[in-house]
Amino acid sequence: MRPPPQSPSPAPSTTAPTAAAGGATDGPVAATVRTLARDLAAVPPGSVVRLQGWVHRRRELANVTFLVLRDRTGLAQVVVRAGAGVGPGEPQGSPRVAAQVPPEETTVDVTGTVTANPQAPGGVELTEPVITPLTDAAETPPVELWRPALAVALPTLLDHAAVAWRHPAQKARWEVAATSLGGFRATLDAAGFTEICTPKLVGTATESGANVFPVDYFGRPAYLAQSPQFYKQQMVGVFERVYEVGPVFRAEPHDTVRHLAEYRSLDVELGFVRDHRDVLAVLRDVLAGMADAVRGSGAAERLGVEVPEVPAAFPVIHFADALALVGAPADEPDLAPEHERALGQWAMAEHGSDFVAVEGYPMAKRPFYTHPETGARAAAGDGRWSNSFDLLFRGLELVTGGQRLHRYPDYVAAIEARGEDPAAYASYLAAFRHGMPPHGGFAIGLERWVARLVGAANVREVTPFPRDLHRLVP
Amino acid sequence: MRPPPQSPSPAPSTTAPTAAAGGATDGPVAATVRTLARDLAAVPPGSVVRLQGWVHRRRELANVTFLVLRDRTGLAQVVVRAGAGVGPGEPQGSPRVAAQVPPEETTVDVTGTVTANPQAPGGVELTEPVITPLTDAAETPPVELWRPALAVALPTLLDHAAVAWRHPAQKARWEVAATSLGGFRATLDAAGFTEICTPKLVGTATESGANVFPVDYFGRPAYLAQSPQFYKQQMVGVFERVYEVGPVFRAEPHDTVRHLAEYRSLDVELGFVRDHRDVLAVLRDVLAGMADAVRGSGAAERLGVEVPEVPAAFPVIHFADALALVGAPADEPDLAPEHERALGQWAMAEHGSDFVAVEGYPMAKRPFYTHPETGARAAAGDGRWSNSFDLLFRGLELVTGGQRLHRYPDYVAAIEARGEDPAAYASYLAAFRHGMPPHGGFAIGLERWVARLVGAANVREVTPFPRDLHRLVP
Repeated sequence: MRPPPQSPSPAPSTTAPTAAAGGATDGPVAATVRTLARDLAAVPPGSVVRLQGWVHRRRELANVTFLVLRDRTGLAQVVVRAGAGVGPGEPQGSPRVAAQVPPEETTVDVTGTVTANPQAPGGVELTEPVITPLTDAAETPPVELWRPALAVALPTLLDHAAVAWRHPAQKARWEVAATSLGGFRATLDAAGFTEICTPKLVGTATESGANVFPVDYFGRPAYLAQSPQFYKQQMVGVFERVYEVGPVFRAEPHDTVRHLAEYRSLDVELGFVRDHRDVLAVLRDVLAGMADAVRGSGAAERLGVEVPEVPAAFPVIHFADALALVGAPADEPDLAPEHERALGQWAMAEHGSDFVAVEGYPMAKRPFYTHPETGARAAAGDGRWSNSFDLLFRGLELVTGGQRLHRYPDYVAAIEARGEDPAAYASYLAAFRHGMPPHGGFAIGLERWVARLVGAANVREVTPFPRDLHRLVP
Repeated sequence: MRPPPQSPSPAPSTTAPTAAAGGATDGPVAATVRTLARDLAAVPPGSVVRLQGWVHRRRELANVTFLVLRDRTGLAQVVVRAGAGVGPGEPQGSPRVAAQVPPEETTVDVTGTVTANPQAPGGVELTEPVITPLTDAAETPPVELWRPALAVALPTLLDHAAVAWRHPAQKARWEVAATSLGGFRATLDAAGFTEICTPKLVGTATESGANVFPVDYFGRPAYLAQSPQFYKQQMVGVFERVYEVGPVFRAEPHDTVRHLAEYRSLDVELGFVRDHRDVLAVLRDVLAGMADAVRGSGAAERLGVEVPEVPAAFPVIHFADALALVGAPADEPDLAPEHERALGQWAMAEHGSDFVAVEGYPMAKRPFYTHPETGARAAAGDGRWSNSFDLLFRGLELVTGGQRLHRYPDYVAAIEARGEDPAAYASYLAAFRHGMPPHGGFAIGLERWVARLVGAANVREVTPFPRDLHRLVP
């Protein structure tokens, strides 16, 4: 018995639907490959093409109905006049045109003739269409997707995510996120970084000790990883330069516009650095790569938002100087949101930069693996400052990073100084006992980057299925 | 007060270490950019270069010590003769050479003269070196990393992951994984797919009902997602074609060589398909892209493993024919591992293919969203078979996929047939109520792909930090 091998089939985007997909296959329809809305303007008028997509808008006039079809690349106008055939087996010449155009959001297959019309989007429209629904008539959507702006309250957007994200403007927001991920990886791949995948289920809550989600792991306690920090450092010992894009989990008890219980962290770590300034130089290249990718995708243009110019080097201000600049007391341990906003304004006014790096954050506010300050000001700081930084983007903290400790005895001392037992960190510390280079890294929050870029006030507006104190569905 | 902006600094891989990183900066050393081991053979003999990396091997002879340095690109030989300077401030002419080469796995900075030596790896070595340790002397590693093969038992590899994965052969195994991810994304990006990020914390355990990890979510019950299935389908309604690389979580109670409690799933879903054969065509292109990327990276070559040729189209056999072929009873609901092996041998013998797709799996063994069979055999099957498939790679299930239901009434019926209430799936079903195209998709298990490719018997051998019934650390 020898079943024949699968005959090579054309790619799905260029094939006609069969009865299996609910469509018609008879006649010239089956011979027509799919054309995407974006490509319609380049098709010679008079050609017969096939479109597939959603009924974005149905507009009925006396003797004509306009069907605006939406596919993944854009919109296309279809003109249905009395007499057009609708559906397989539907008699030509039916007068009831409007009733034969399926309701909005129904998926359809449309073949028709490309006809020039300067009034139509892209200068062309489809005439003499044959419209075949690919499924049942769609129910009226909970939001009006065909309006130019999606004017809905946040809870409506979130509750109806599966449908509301079909709106072209909302879709473009995610395209900003997706293309940013592409730019992130492309920049790092070109610089000799290796992508890693580290576990999200961990056995101890040692990294910060608080705000972790407990998991019932085969009857034993486990936790969701708050970051890949320990693992990406260990992998510097293997690959020197690593990155990971993955979910991180924070049981944040506050309900703010910039925190989520689960978000996407873009993590980078690299070895053989001099100090945190080398890390900052890589961060600069990464953000430039992300901005370029967004610019190239056209999504920002469709949204009418400006992609920042990433300067050749970020302006850098020391934490102590930053406090003085914003008029805060010299013993403040952290920057408040209004301080960050003031620093963002300063960076734009003084350096024409959407970005500013604040270096030298107090050791007391940084994790135990943070490297103390080593620069010219180190002696004056008396161990108070660190080789770590925050990067502010338009006055909001976007990235935290810095140099880490790399000497084993330094780790033992730092952990003991917290009153903890280094034995609890044995597998992590093994990397340092057996030789690690000076290294550092950073983590970018994807949702914050996108929100700031598109001007969304709340990270939930750019996250299809956000998780927070109150929201676990959809 | 105006701190100067950060002066543009050279990329970390081309800069000299400063005192901050524990190195020396005086003399010509500081002026020498870093050279990677891979590039050493292209440097004109007589040049002074700087290497940075780990002491991979220290071999002491009477009057000379060989230091093999390892960096992320490979190995380089350094020849230390009596009289060479070692460390900053170390007097030239010291006779105790060996004692001055730090122990294995210590990170070092080495400057020296490139000298031709046909016996050395790459035909060159470094002579007259100045060696500067970048950290304390490393403790002896728990595994012998310098041996050509890493001959350790699996528990040793897993317990000492941070160090054991430094072995070049082990490192190459992960490079196969990392480059596969790159090939996966590049193929899909070029075909108009959009990367998505879906939540890993979910409110219900409805998808399969069993083998889920419960999470304490702010005092309420939540679960770790077993797959992005529901979300990727909803996002087909937005982007038509989507993919995600992310962790999935299975509370698998069995302890086998092919199951993990957390693994990387390469998920794809696409709309406007005719049936599962269109999905299979995309899967074919994706695997070809992954294989090409691995081939291009050189990692497989270093491991001495053969990257499969992906045929222009996979051989396809129907489930019913597959049962007959392997001599199993016609009413078997699934393929046993020995059946899969036999089918793999058949595919190679009959079609010269490492891959074979088995289509038409019984509806009874597939999830509720599976589309029933629609092809020529559908009538004879009487609803028993489905438009779903498994792809076997060298006789092991690698991918599961197929066409999904797309009509809302079909979902309601399928869920009710399981004795469940469709209301529990309301947010998922909203996508279908409001118009979805015929669609399908698949999921590739990264660890299985890599294990099969490199000939590892156990997925744990290719996963740096596996999670299973027993293992949650490191």
